[in-house]
Amino acid sequence: MKINNLDISSMIIDLTSSGKMLRPAFFLLFSEFGEKKRSTKDLIPLAASLEILHVATLIHDDVIDDSPLRRSYPTIHTKYGRRNAIYAGDYLFTLYFELISKNLESNTDILRNALSMKKILIGELDQMLINFNVKSTTDMYMKEISGKTAELFSLSAAMGAVVSDGSAELITRCKEIGHDIGMAFQIIDDILDFSNSAQTGKPVHEDLKNGVYSLPYILGLEAGNRQLIDILSKADLTAEDDSLATDIVIDYGYLNKAKDIAKTFTEHAVEEIEKLPKNKNQKVLRAIVQRLVNRIK
Amino acid sequence: MKINNLDISSMIIDLTSSGKMLRPAFFLLFSEFGEKKRSTKDLIPLAASLEILHVATLIHDDVIDDSPLRRSYPTIHTKYGRRNAIYAGDYLFTLYFELISKNLESNTDILRNALSMKKILIGELDQMLINFNVKSTTDMYMKEISGKTAELFSLSAAMGAVVSDGSAELITRCKEIGHDIGMAFQIIDDILDFSNSAQTGKPVHEDLKNGVYSLPYILGLEAGNRQLIDILSKADLTAEDDSLATDIVIDYGYLNKAKDIAKTFTEHAVEEIEKLPKNKNQKVLRAIVQRLVNRIK
Repeated sequence: MKINNLDISSMIIDLTSSGKMLRPAFFLLFSEFGEKKRSTKDLIPLAASLEILHVATLIHDDVIDDSPLRRSYPTIHTKYGRRNAIYAGDYLFTLYFELISKNLESNTDILRNALSMKKILIGELDQMLINFNVKSTTDMYMKEISGKTAELFSLSAAMGAVVSDGSAELITRCKEIGHDIGMAFQIIDDILDFSNSAQTGKPVHEDLKNGVYSLPYILGLEAGNRQLIDILSKADLTAEDDSLATDIVIDYGYLNKAKDIAKTFTEHAVEEIEKLPKNKNQKVLRAIVQRLVNRIK
Repeated sequence: MKINNLDISSMIIDLTSSGKMLRPAFFLLFSEFGEKKRSTKDLIPLAASLEILHVATLIHDDVIDDSPLRRSYPTIHTKYGRRNAIYAGDYLFTLYFELISKNLESNTDILRNALSMKKILIGELDQMLINFNVKSTTDMYMKEISGKTAELFSLSAAMGAVVSDGSAELITRCKEIGHDIGMAFQIIDDILDFSNSAQTGKPVHEDLKNGVYSLPYILGLEAGNRQLIDILSKADLTAEDDSLATDIVIDYGYLNKAKDIAKTFTEHAVEEIEKLPKNKNQKVLRAIVQRLVNRIK
């Protein structure tokens, strides 16, 4: 697809090349729990729409944060300019909207998507409440990632149940499982970011420098750890500050507490997965959650 | 409505305070030609959705062009920062999507909106083809304003026919009238921009400096006017260049030709308006078109 000599498909490939297409995969996995059997081919447009929505928000996020790289590749605005990146994001929103309107049967389902899209955007806006705010709380963090990350996992799972003619109970259950996995996924991602940087000894945690506090730090801030608060209140963080903050987060057990919180979500997800109809996808979901937990063992 | 301490409503009021709410007005005007009588109160959410979509694209346009002012007021990114402006635009897209999904009865109608939204975005992207391009043609210009401006007028009119249970024929007619008025509206806006700057003797036409060529210039470029092509090919335009270009556009009759093209659209609109059911709104539409034409008399 070419618009204005820009190859939109290649833009998307640039963005998703190293992506895991988790949301479409979730949607397809959950589409086998209801009564109606649907061919994967039929479901591709809806599966794609979930990735498209995700990519649209990533493109705008990268413009806003002026991030040079995403998944080790140059970001869209770095490669094609800010103008094209903003319009490409907008264009993908319209494409998402089109795919949803074309491929969902009921207005209620379309509305479900619209409301999710809204929650995702509110999650993005909420993120600003946490940035550079040493008064950030776990509640604020949970609210943010619930919108920013868990909502789209939740929607993907719920949509799977919807297209397979699942009962209201099944839809709610899938929605919850998606939400819990999404929450765990984001917290674990944050923990791994923290641990990787701590291990590789990068000069300063990039996120920290940008005032983006992940859960391990927020737990320390919320516990009123004076040392941590003082460090993060500084205008410019040195490598020493960063290293000290890392030690505090590990020594005071904030990192472990974050791991425990992630596990609470995966445990609840597993409980609900057990209640799903028994089929091979139920096993796949169990395995996915296990792999997620193994990452922070 | 407050998100992250930003008052989104006040952002919208900032933007629409001096706006004419033309698209919602069009929608309401056209909603009285079908069989079904709808109360204005019922139609407010859909009317609002059209202005919301319009405003969302304006906010992003202003970020992209880094325009300091819109309708003599500071633009959103100037007042609230680029980050908030991009997210505010995105948020308004989701709000539009929500209002449409909640208030339209059939999927076909929702899809009509999705496809329009897509065309509008493609119009924005097409605009880049014309910028700084002395090989721009009338066709390229028409295609651009057809997406950028006429599409939303066309959608507003068609939606009016849809919600009043209009026949397929009526919907097509309203769509066409909306399109023609939208085209005329944009061309006349371009002509007035040209004439105002010519009269007030501003140093250099702002748009021209930014490589945005309106119809009068494009007609000259397309006619192969060597002098005009040479001026617009310059890297930096002086006040003298601008004044010379203005003279060329007037002397060679390109301005008058643009006016004639606008009139072709209004004449066709009037022809179709005559075929609408006779009621007071038909008269209002006739008067609107007349006022539009009078602006370039």
